[in-house]
Amino acid sequence: METVLRSKSREVVIGPDQPTRIIGERINPTGKKLLAESLAKKDMSRIKRLAEEQVAAGAAILDVNVGAAGVNEVELLPMAVQAVMEVTDVPLCLDSANAQALRAALEVYEGKALINSVNGEEASLGRVLPLAREFGAAVIGLTMDERGIPKTAQERLEVAQKIVERAEAMGIPREDILIDCLALAVGADTTAGLVALEAIRLVRQALGVNMTLGVSNISFGLPDREEINEVFLAMALGCGVNAPIVNPAQACKTVLIADLLLGRDEYAMRYIRYCRAQKAASS
Amino acid sequence: METVLRSKSREVVIGPDQPTRIIGERINPTGKKLLAESLAKKDMSRIKRLAEEQVAAGAAILDVNVGAAGVNEVELLPMAVQAVMEVTDVPLCLDSANAQALRAALEVYEGKALINSVNGEEASLGRVLPLAREFGAAVIGLTMDERGIPKTAQERLEVAQKIVERAEAMGIPREDILIDCLALAVGADTTAGLVALEAIRLVRQALGVNMTLGVSNISFGLPDREEINEVFLAMALGCGVNAPIVNPAQACKTVLIADLLLGRDEYAMRYIRYCRAQKAASS
Repeated sequence: METVLRSKSREVVIGPDQPTRIIGERINPTGKKLLAESLAKKDMSRIKRLAEEQVAAGAAILDVNVGAAGVNEVELLPMAVQAVMEVTDVPLCLDSANAQALRAALEVYEGKALINSVNGEEASLGRVLPLAREFGAAVIGLTMDERGIPKTAQERLEVAQKIVERAEAMGIPREDILIDCLALAVGADTTAGLVALEAIRLVRQALGVNMTLGVSNISFGLPDREEINEVFLAMALGCGVNAPIVNPAQACKTVLIADLLLGRDEYAMRYIRYCRAQKAASS
Repeated sequence: METVLRSKSREVVIGPDQPTRIIGERINPTGKKLLAESLAKKDMSRIKRLAEEQVAAGAAILDVNVGAAGVNEVELLPMAVQAVMEVTDVPLCLDSANAQALRAALEVYEGKALINSVNGEEASLGRVLPLAREFGAAVIGLTMDERGIPKTAQERLEVAQKIVERAEAMGIPREDILIDCLALAVGADTTAGLVALEAIRLVRQALGVNMTLGVSNISFGLPDREEINEVFLAMALGCGVNAPIVNPAQACKTVLIADLLLGRDEYAMRYIRYCRAQKAASS
């Protein structure tokens, strides 16, 4: 099953036989004071730089999130999308909890976008799926609903099933749904990693859909977060995630190695080329 | 299912609800010229140092292999086992293709050893399983037989099944078999990682046995081997390996993080303690 995303000039295919596609997570003001301040002033220079850096580091898709206190997302999300389209040609992932902001961004986006996100709540399904259908966009489905985030992998699968069924009933093809099984902080809940990994395996097997995952939550509050994120990313890719939302500068080599180990890099050609380029750049 | 190993004074339990147990791989002259030379002179000082270093770095079990050109293993393996028992009290994994050498080592070993290894060949089953029964040892079963190493995960499962059945028929309990699904060099065979990971999942699910894996072969011939080994180790632990054969100095933190992510480290206490000790040691 292949998910196709498009910018004005480029097509990106997500699928089990494709290389892992990195969705760059860095255009997001959460915890980034300077980015939040520049957004409040409608200054797009930082966003443009983050876009260029992430594509150079290996992002195939860029998440664009402008949600912060005091920001009018309906005005700002399309501005940010425009700004990113000016400096890169990768497909974009439009990230907001505000359906009006998503609509405004979809109206300016040129291509086939990825919407981040819908979840199993009736209100969310009713607001976001019609947007995906109207604009022919793909959409990330989070495995949570009115009850919150289920504690078990089986219940998360059931939420994913509901999202896929509702989308298909509206005419959105299954290949345009990416499921995110939701990684919570393992420092607060000992089972957080295990349940997410089990859910990823179950959803992949039962629904056959492509899978994303916001990786970095897992390490919240713990020392040496990057190392935890890397090990979790490796495990998640091994379980079926093929379009993770990560910091490409940190995750790119792990992703290349994972593709090598999962049989997606014949004769290790992409991996060896990357290592050579790294060495050339550092010498 | 729990595998219990013992030294004279210590017991180590391998099981799905236990922390991952590292089998230290470093006492092995393959590719180590100085170690091979000192072994040829029956000098045990290097082996003793490697034993102490690996236990300090987090090994729960030590593999002892003295196989090298010009070495009489039947004489040298028991000497090496004696030497390691003098400086550490972890259980040992007696590693030889020579059944006479295994017998000689089992005769001097005090405790319940792990034999490395038997495989699905009739000759191997007939030589090694009786030793395991006679000495009450546990044994590593490699998923290969007269045909070599099968290309598919399903065939590797069948070899594992054969080994377990033959052991049980002789009165060796299933919990005393650890299966190694065999990682080959992914630079030479693009499917090597994927097939090994699939086999690990199949064997774990079908037979319920504990699982070991010699991790480092996977990266043979490729640049930045340690990084490949680390990602593969993370994936393999995620699939069910719980007693990997690795260099503990390189693998220990990855193993701790994997245990954290697999729900085996409540409130991240072991991980945080390790990070604090690391920081204290480096400051």
